[in-house]
Amino acid sequence: MNGFTIDQLKVGQTASFSKTITEYDVYTFAGVTGDLNPAHINEEFARQTQFHGRIAHGMLSAGLISAVIGMQLPGPGTIYLGQELSFRSPVHIGDTITATVTVRSLNLERNRAELDTVCTNQDGIQVVIGSAKIMPPKA
Amino acid sequence: MNGFTIDQLKVGQTASFSKTITEYDVYTFAGVTGDLNPAHINEEFARQTQFHGRIAHGMLSAGLISAVIGMQLPGPGTIYLGQELSFRSPVHIGDTITATVTVRSLNLERNRAELDTVCTNQDGIQVVIGSAKIMPPKA
Amino acid sequence: MNGFTIDQLKVGQTASFSKTITEYDVYTFAGVTGDLNPAHINEEFARQTQFHGRIAHGMLSAGLISAVIGMQLPGPGTIYLGQELSFRSPVHIGDTITATVTVRSLNLERNRAELDTVCTNQDGIQVVIGSAKIMPPKA
Amino acid sequence: MNGFTIDQLKVGQTASFSKTITEYDVYTFAGVTGDLNPAHINEEFARQTQFHGRIAHGMLSAGLISAVIGMQLPGPGTIYLGQELSFRSPVHIGDTITATVTVRSLNLERNRAELDTVCTNQDGIQVVIGSAKIMPPKA
Repeated sequence: MNGFTIDQLKVGQTASFSKTITEYDVYTFAGVTGDLNPAHINEEFARQTQFHGRIAHGMLSAGLISAVIGMQLPGPGTIYLGQELSFRSPVHIGDTITATVTVRSLNLERNRAELDTVCTNQDGIQVVIGSAKIMPPKA
Repeated sequence: MNGFTIDQLKVGQTASFSKTITEYDVYTFAGVTGDLNPAHINEEFARQTQFHGRIAHGMLSAGLISAVIGMQLPGPGTIYLGQELSFRSPVHIGDTITATVTVRSLNLERNRAELDTVCTNQDGIQVVIGSAKIMPPKA
Repeated sequence: MNGFTIDQLKVGQTASFSKTITEYDVYTFAGVTGDLNPAHINEEFARQTQFHGRIAHGMLSAGLISAVIGMQLPGPGTIYLGQELSFRSPVHIGDTITATVTVRSLNLERNRAELDTVCTNQDGIQVVIGSAKIMPPKA
Repeated sequence: MNGFTIDQLKVGQTASFSKTITEYDVYTFAGVTGDLNPAHINEEFARQTQFHGRIAHGMLSAGLISAVIGMQLPGPGTIYLGQELSFRSPVHIGDTITATVTVRSLNLERNRAELDTVCTNQDGIQVVIGSAKIMPPKA
């Protein structure tokens, strides 16, 4: 059931996961994390902001990145060490977000890898960029 | 409804939010993000790992940090620019996690702030550490 | 609290349950079952399919059948032995689905019954047809 | 993004998905399908039954089968034509269920496949057995 070991990974290897982000996703994420910021759950407030409506939590997009890392690349058994996130554009309700993970570098001695992590919307606009540090599963 | 403007923030100012992480939280987070990594939803698999059972998603703890930033410090109207996360210890189902945000530095000219962000469990163990870059709301 | 015993059932007896299927239903079903098939949660992908948009899981309609059997006909105490399902037409978000269960045959000696099970949408189109084998509750 | 076409499938090819079934899963499934049968959500009632406590909906296990078919084998783009289900043993809250799908036969001319579908618990006991008819995605 385990994912790729470091010997099975290659620089440039990539995987992705896509989801249309719904009001339900944003409200459920708000309820579970306690992030009831009006930008996410108050349309009257959000309409007055520069985003002209409620937006999804940045960490919800980050969750899609985590999904790719934990399920596909490297997959189950991976230890997630760290994540850098830069939030570049808002995610609106109804946007379809694709999280893509690409192997940037491998350290075979220390069993560590760095991954490029990016989320784009249906128009190809980058909404989150960043990188992850992980330990692939051991053989 | 807006939070603190940069003039109202002080280095060292702090706020926090605590939640006991339940099986419901982990399963809901899995369903919404698509992160069905067996480490989170398969007890038989997870029992064999170094964590001896299912653990919460790191991004769920990160969501608690986002909650403090967006609701308290600086609060509504804040633009979340970026977040660095280092996952230090596992969060087990039943752990009570406290996300604490502290103002590290302020750039009044550019209306930017850096925040220290840490999540600890009920035993005081740091489970996530890192920092955030934000733009406080304008007056 | 128990439902109909086999002595109380008659061939042709019928019961039904209706629900308008929402985006919330589809997304929640996806999260709980792990069925994140893009046909269900990715509008950009689903728009390119022959169904022209996201559709509900067939097993969600099957769940409505299970609801009728377990709650109404025969009702609580029934043992669900088997179900045959034929998926005939897609269920779109916003469709109102009616699951109807009708007693087809009764075996009093073995305490077994066969039920016709069908789900139709608001236009009377059959979306799922099939049959169930059950043991009614004992007196 | 599409899954295996019929040319890429082989008899005997297999895939699986595992999940520990929680109270949250059962209650959420009950809420979405309307199947509020006391066997699933009434511990006082369920304790008096032959199962000695609340059990998961059979269709929840069937949903895990659907997850394997729609996401892995054949994967996205598959048309689900039908499913036969035989419920053999109860699934209790806390059981870890593995849905396994195996290609039984292929009809290249008509682009149809039959799949064996089985769900087992952590002790290897078959809780659901059956078969599916599907149309793999086209090239």
